[in-house]
Amino acid sequence: MAQKFEIHIIGCGSALPTKKHLPSCQVVDVRDKLLLLDCGEGAQLAWRRTGLNWQKITHIFLTHAHGDHVFGLPGFISTMGLLGRTAPLYVHGPSTLRPFVQCVIANFCQNMDYEVHFEAVDTLKHCIIFEDRSMEVWSLPLNHRVPCCGYLIKEKPGLPHIRREMIDFYDIPLWAINRIKAGEDWTTTDGEVIPHQRLTTPPDRVRSYAYCSDTMPVEQLAEWLHGVDLIYHEATYAESEHTMAARFGHSTASEAAQLAHHAQAARLMLGHFSARYDDENILLEEANSIFPDTILASEGLKIVL
Amino acid sequence: MAQKFEIHIIGCGSALPTKKHLPSCQVVDVRDKLLLLDCGEGAQLAWRRTGLNWQKITHIFLTHAHGDHVFGLPGFISTMGLLGRTAPLYVHGPSTLRPFVQCVIANFCQNMDYEVHFEAVDTLKHCIIFEDRSMEVWSLPLNHRVPCCGYLIKEKPGLPHIRREMIDFYDIPLWAINRIKAGEDWTTTDGEVIPHQRLTTPPDRVRSYAYCSDTMPVEQLAEWLHGVDLIYHEATYAESEHTMAARFGHSTASEAAQLAHHAQAARLMLGHFSARYDDENILLEEANSIFPDTILASEGLKIVL
Repeated sequence: MAQKFEIHIIGCGSALPTKKHLPSCQVVDVRDKLLLLDCGEGAQLAWRRTGLNWQKITHIFLTHAHGDHVFGLPGFISTMGLLGRTAPLYVHGPSTLRPFVQCVIANFCQNMDYEVHFEAVDTLKHCIIFEDRSMEVWSLPLNHRVPCCGYLIKEKPGLPHIRREMIDFYDIPLWAINRIKAGEDWTTTDGEVIPHQRLTTPPDRVRSYAYCSDTMPVEQLAEWLHGVDLIYHEATYAESEHTMAARFGHSTASEAAQLAHHAQAARLMLGHFSARYDDENILLEEANSIFPDTILASEGLKIVL
Repeated sequence: MAQKFEIHIIGCGSALPTKKHLPSCQVVDVRDKLLLLDCGEGAQLAWRRTGLNWQKITHIFLTHAHGDHVFGLPGFISTMGLLGRTAPLYVHGPSTLRPFVQCVIANFCQNMDYEVHFEAVDTLKHCIIFEDRSMEVWSLPLNHRVPCCGYLIKEKPGLPHIRREMIDFYDIPLWAINRIKAGEDWTTTDGEVIPHQRLTTPPDRVRSYAYCSDTMPVEQLAEWLHGVDLIYHEATYAESEHTMAARFGHSTASEAAQLAHHAQAARLMLGHFSARYDDENILLEEANSIFPDTILASEGLKIVL
């Protein structure tokens, strides 16, 4: 069974609050490691409604210094402190967010048992900004009214799978299995060398997820996101509001779909909906006509890659 | 009919978020002038669920620099800007809040069409910090872990009511009515002087509301709040957790009730409930046994004074 790679939508509205949407926030669970993407107001309030252990979040990736993407951060940081967190928290984002994070720490977090580290992301470079054994997180330069970057989360290849029937056939002991997975061949008691490839099947296909909010269309994204499993892309407006979208540094649903098409992505999820759309199906239909595998984000939605 | 004096409870939880409560926030409507008391995270999200026009809020009164009382402020200020506000906003609170307000303005509110003024409140003095034609707002020095003050909102006396039958009897024209209300006598065409007291009934009784969160018991409150119509007082804990309450600078339900009793208040509303109480009736019963006219605050509750 493939290991976990799940996206949980906490909020997918845009700047103006509505009865329907919370501002931007997502939790990504890669093999039980939790990342937070943006942290709009209300994130910690929604926390209690998800089945996730948010204390396991060690890295937060913020896209830009607009309130609807970061005003949940002070409450999130404080509450983790109140709940006795000791593990450090790394907050990644454009350097324009540093004063805000520092102000919150200085004024509200004096007696916490854990440290918050702010790590500035260069919003003009597409590069790895975090990696561990399970994943790489890449920055995605975006084009908004202020310095802004999206994030691409790429699973690292796992180990090959052991072929149970071969293990039984050669009577290979348990202790040797991890070595074979790691690439060692097996020598039988008769001296016969069995290549590790014969004892294993290839590792699972690596999966990837791109988070692009907020931005006007960025041409290079199609290349950076080539073959990605899922793109979350803002679709603040319908194509009929194209001028408005460009004016405020946003995209239309059609533009989001064109990106997914050119990137040959497997799926597209639209979000960051303007408060003007009571029925967001207008955005879905527009995108669907260009890229059929499109869905609308919604609070509480869980996507399994 | 008496003019409006209403309290709307937006949030009455304490620092840890729960499924049930939002953090501290109230709107007070005095003769259609709206004040905000504290501004916990989620205030602007709840905004859409109340029937109030929050743009009419010109003054915010913050008690202290703990996140559960102020983390809704950045979103509140920004959203009013997005909605095109032009009227200035006055934020009153302990000077410890100045850096936070300044940081938010500097980093997120550069292109707003309205001004935010921070006005420091001396948390050691009981004095008038704001007044207009309708009301006075008094500071209430409280005793918490950090500089903290509550607020007493006192209606100013209104004008006397005109006695319709006397107006008809003396055939007094419309233009004279406001003068009579303001204290002028009326002279008939025969030269008879009718004292204004005969033409009016006394103005409505002035009403008052006290907001006391967060605090340990403060002895002088009984005097400052003598005869008040309603006290909102924090009751974070039950009396069985008295040690905990004192340790964290909070009150028990019994202590809140004792204040209401000594102040000879008309009513008491308990709030700022610890997340530990699934059933807050334990707090209500405790307070009721000392001061019967006690109710529990709850999100969405509206109290008409």
